[in-house]
Amino acid sequence: MTIQIHGPAMSPNVGRVLITLFEKGVEDFQLLNVDLSKGEHKSPEFLKNQPFGQVPYIVDGDVVLYESRAIARTIATKYADQGTPLYGTTLTEKALVEQWLEVEAQNYSPPNSALVWNTVFAPMFGMTGDEGVVAAQTPKLESVLDVYEKRLSESKYLAGDFFSLADLAHIPGSFILIKMGQKGALYDSRPHVKAWVDSILSRPSTQKWAKLAGFPQ
Amino acid sequence: MTIQIHGPAMSPNVGRVLITLFEKGVEDFQLLNVDLSKGEHKSPEFLKNQPFGQVPYIVDGDVVLYESRAIARTIATKYADQGTPLYGTTLTEKALVEQWLEVEAQNYSPPNSALVWNTVFAPMFGMTGDEGVVAAQTPKLESVLDVYEKRLSESKYLAGDFFSLADLAHIPGSFILIKMGQKGALYDSRPHVKAWVDSILSRPSTQKWAKLAGFPQ
Repeated sequence: MTIQIHGPAMSPNVGRVLITLFEKGVEDFQLLNVDLSKGEHKSPEFLKNQPFGQVPYIVDGDVVLYESRAIARTIATKYADQGTPLYGTTLTEKALVEQWLEVEAQNYSPPNSALVWNTVFAPMFGMTGDEGVVAAQTPKLESVLDVYEKRLSESKYLAGDFFSLADLAHIPGSFILIKMGQKGALYDSRPHVKAWVDSILSRPSTQKWAKLAGFPQ
Repeated sequence: MTIQIHGPAMSPNVGRVLITLFEKGVEDFQLLNVDLSKGEHKSPEFLKNQPFGQVPYIVDGDVVLYESRAIARTIATKYADQGTPLYGTTLTEKALVEQWLEVEAQNYSPPNSALVWNTVFAPMFGMTGDEGVVAAQTPKLESVLDVYEKRLSESKYLAGDFFSLADLAHIPGSFILIKMGQKGALYDSRPHVKAWVDSILSRPSTQKWAKLAGFPQ
């Protein structure tokens, strides 16, 4: 059954889903663009499937599913026996994967997303980023990265010495901020964070997504 | 092994963990208060276990875990065979539970938490809530509840016709806003939302938590 993914590949939330599929070796999918600049994600047709007007949603047989981290968890579970194991191997490892997935969603993503929008996407689309937001969110991201620096001095990846869905969830927003904006120094100046992002951004799954999104590799 | 929960029972994030334990019939736990008004959650001792300075964290044997939704998922998985099933029974049901758990975290909790703080907790602690925040967040919560109203006209609970971790995650913040503040009308005016909150707030697990938190029942 071909999985349909509705959303633009360049969206970090769509990227999270695509990279999970690539890690699991699921390449039988169809990517259907949603033109955010035309407001297609607020159209009645889109809202039927994603009532909050956010990308992406997927259609897998008769199941419609949204929220990128829920989709990623579902793919990781459904295809547990193929590709990269994304939840570790024990209940404790899985618990730590869930913990760092939540840290990504609650602590990392808000400042990262604000900087991605205001320093990369806004200029890309001919708009001006909000300097006040950049000034407010930069130290927030730095505080989070300070915690990551300490954690990554203890283990190679966030949940332990294994790559997991928690690391994966960070890839799209980190890629865009580091490779396409002026904020790479936030990561480069922290040696364990730098080693970690170098590792996760060089994965073949990251490269495949970046190519689909039309980003530099 | 007695699970230690570090955090005040009245915190919605601590409530989410306690209600999950009650639903699973795990009552062998120890609740250790953290006095937020004294900044105990920012102390070096606390930060060793929860580096972001947020409640709660738990200690279960030699495992320290934080982020309430990650803890709740872990308890639901570890005690899958006892108490209330919290993930449904099929992969599709589990996927929808994960979807609505993310909706709670990403869409519902931000405006709900802002209203809980500014209309209930701030006055309770002798402070003045920010009226600008209340004015901005009220219509955001209303928009989310409009989506819920439609969804709950199709199924009794968010993920389907079964109570799940997704509904549970909404209990503490909804309880505080409805039972202890002036915003209950947002819920009462939407009949399917009202039936749903009446149902989830009347669960014995909710009552046990409210009692621990010292809230009216």
